[in-house]
Amino acid sequence: MSQFWSPIVHALTPYVPGEQPKVSNLIKLNTNENPYGPSPKVLELLKKQSSDALRLYPDPNATELKEAIAKYYNVDIETVFVGNGSDEVLAHTFAGLLKKEKPLLFPDISYSFYPVYCGLYEIEYEQIPLNDQLEIDLKTYPSTNGGIIFPNPNAPTGRLTPLSQIENLLQINCQSVVVVDEAYIDFGGESAISLVDKYPNLLVIQTFSKSRSLAGLRVGFAIGNPELIEGLERIKNSFNSYPLDRFAIKGAAASLEDEAYFKVCCQRVISTRTKLTNQLTALNFTVLPSSANFVFAQHASKDAADLASQLREKSIIVRHFKQDRIRNYLRISIGTDNECEQLASALDEILKP
Amino acid sequence: MSQFWSPIVHALTPYVPGEQPKVSNLIKLNTNENPYGPSPKVLELLKKQSSDALRLYPDPNATELKEAIAKYYNVDIETVFVGNGSDEVLAHTFAGLLKKEKPLLFPDISYSFYPVYCGLYEIEYEQIPLNDQLEIDLKTYPSTNGGIIFPNPNAPTGRLTPLSQIENLLQINCQSVVVVDEAYIDFGGESAISLVDKYPNLLVIQTFSKSRSLAGLRVGFAIGNPELIEGLERIKNSFNSYPLDRFAIKGAAASLEDEAYFKVCCQRVISTRTKLTNQLTALNFTVLPSSANFVFAQHASKDAADLASQLREKSIIVRHFKQDRIRNYLRISIGTDNECEQLASALDEILKP
Repeated sequence: MSQFWSPIVHALTPYVPGEQPKVSNLIKLNTNENPYGPSPKVLELLKKQSSDALRLYPDPNATELKEAIAKYYNVDIETVFVGNGSDEVLAHTFAGLLKKEKPLLFPDISYSFYPVYCGLYEIEYEQIPLNDQLEIDLKTYPSTNGGIIFPNPNAPTGRLTPLSQIENLLQINCQSVVVVDEAYIDFGGESAISLVDKYPNLLVIQTFSKSRSLAGLRVGFAIGNPELIEGLERIKNSFNSYPLDRFAIKGAAASLEDEAYFKVCCQRVISTRTKLTNQLTALNFTVLPSSANFVFAQHASKDAADLASQLREKSIIVRHFKQDRIRNYLRISIGTDNECEQLASALDEILKP
Repeated sequence: MSQFWSPIVHALTPYVPGEQPKVSNLIKLNTNENPYGPSPKVLELLKKQSSDALRLYPDPNATELKEAIAKYYNVDIETVFVGNGSDEVLAHTFAGLLKKEKPLLFPDISYSFYPVYCGLYEIEYEQIPLNDQLEIDLKTYPSTNGGIIFPNPNAPTGRLTPLSQIENLLQINCQSVVVVDEAYIDFGGESAISLVDKYPNLLVIQTFSKSRSLAGLRVGFAIGNPELIEGLERIKNSFNSYPLDRFAIKGAAASLEDEAYFKVCCQRVISTRTKLTNQLTALNFTVLPSSANFVFAQHASKDAADLASQLREKSIIVRHFKQDRIRNYLRISIGTDNECEQLASALDEILKP
């Protein structure tokens, strides 16, 4: 507490990201990073950016990256917004499109940054409970709202909301913005980008951090009606003219060019996810059906927090959340086959009677 | 305008950065970039960051960079805050430290992003006129205020406020935060960082974009009392956990290691500034004394906007502002000796009777 802080600062409860340990030799299955590095073509291009041109500002509009995204998703460039990670895109979305008189709606179990943004921008919100299967049930979202946001697949559950249900929502919810936060969509879901043309109140947010293996580069984007995008641009240009550096613009754009590499990596993650799900089930875990690059699993008898700390002793980090409804779950990022094998063996040892 | 925007968006007047032209063969003296590239040691280290590790998030705290800054300025790491360019550091400063009941004060002629931040965060402000010599006169700043911010040297005038005058202000203005925005300090000023220990309400903001030749990398920082820094961290961690990517953290830290290179580049800019000032004076310009990597110059008879567009026709870009008090000035970034020679020749041709 300080007399020098703006009043809002006292009330904030900042987001706490998953640990980024400084020691190596850990098996890091806690922040949903891709176990495979970026495309070699991306790395080659990034090397070339280490040049005298770094003395110059980047393109404040990141036009090259927007063009690459527009081409990849077959949309107009005016429907594309980019930012410094999807977290920044989300922040501008909360400020620019979701601060309304009526409360914003999102799931009770969801990305834990959402209530933090609401704190920062003083947005009233209502959390709608997942159903008993920990699914988002969009039919239960009140029609009176100042906006709706949810991840698809949801985090940390990994559960997918079918596109048909999202379209049903959009048909009845026309008066406020609906944001679909698709950080994990490439691991088994169908993107709502195909609906953007039809619904002027739909904004889809994605990231290069997961399926594109570029968490270290900080690039996210949104696709939506040009009117929504203009709102985001106005906020962005009142905050920071150049949020993407020269590496980020080039690297993210290049990652969209190597489709073969992208597909192979996603497919590998999906296939490891199936194997790990089977192994965890055999170890007496209930594993929610996942469409993401992580699984959300609950053991039949062991406490999840204990399991997480026992795994940590064996140099494996997974994520545990303390919220009531999910305190008995572990969120485990999909690593390589080898990493997941080591996780399964470690759990086997821990669980041995 | 859109029904889907948050109410605040309608009222915004976003910042317009200097043009970043996509054609080459221009002499670009409009955005105060360093004419010399980053240290070769920085470029070498940046190349190494193009690796599989990009699949991993960066350190959200950017500890390595904070340590490097703390070591360089001989301060505690708890006094250091870093962000995605000093524009982001400024944005968080406005939100976290300058939104108070009483109005924020800044000069009428100053960094034109300040009123934009005030618009975004709904901060009341009062602009205090520069004196007739276009100097900041801190004695004229009302003692009743919610904070004070000014660039030193000021932009776009280039004029330096002596450290003694800043300390005088700090001695009487103890109840609100004083922010000294030192983007250009390395080109001839004395930093207020030396006063941070003594004044708990002083925040000094700097950037790697100018004297460190890393505008393309987007890194800025603030140094102040740990209480102020904690306020900024709380805002940052409610906005974006990982604002600095892996290149930015490493490159900025490395640039602090090559002091010899840094000094040579700054010295070259200063010496070119002297030459250019003399040439412009000979061409009938009045040039304000500059401590920055640009000069602010007014011709005895020619209209500044006309001169800027005539220079543009000769492939030279300089910056012109439309504000009343300075509409007859050009802001000219210091390029290489050769670039400044070309500017002087072009002006000579334009001004020939």
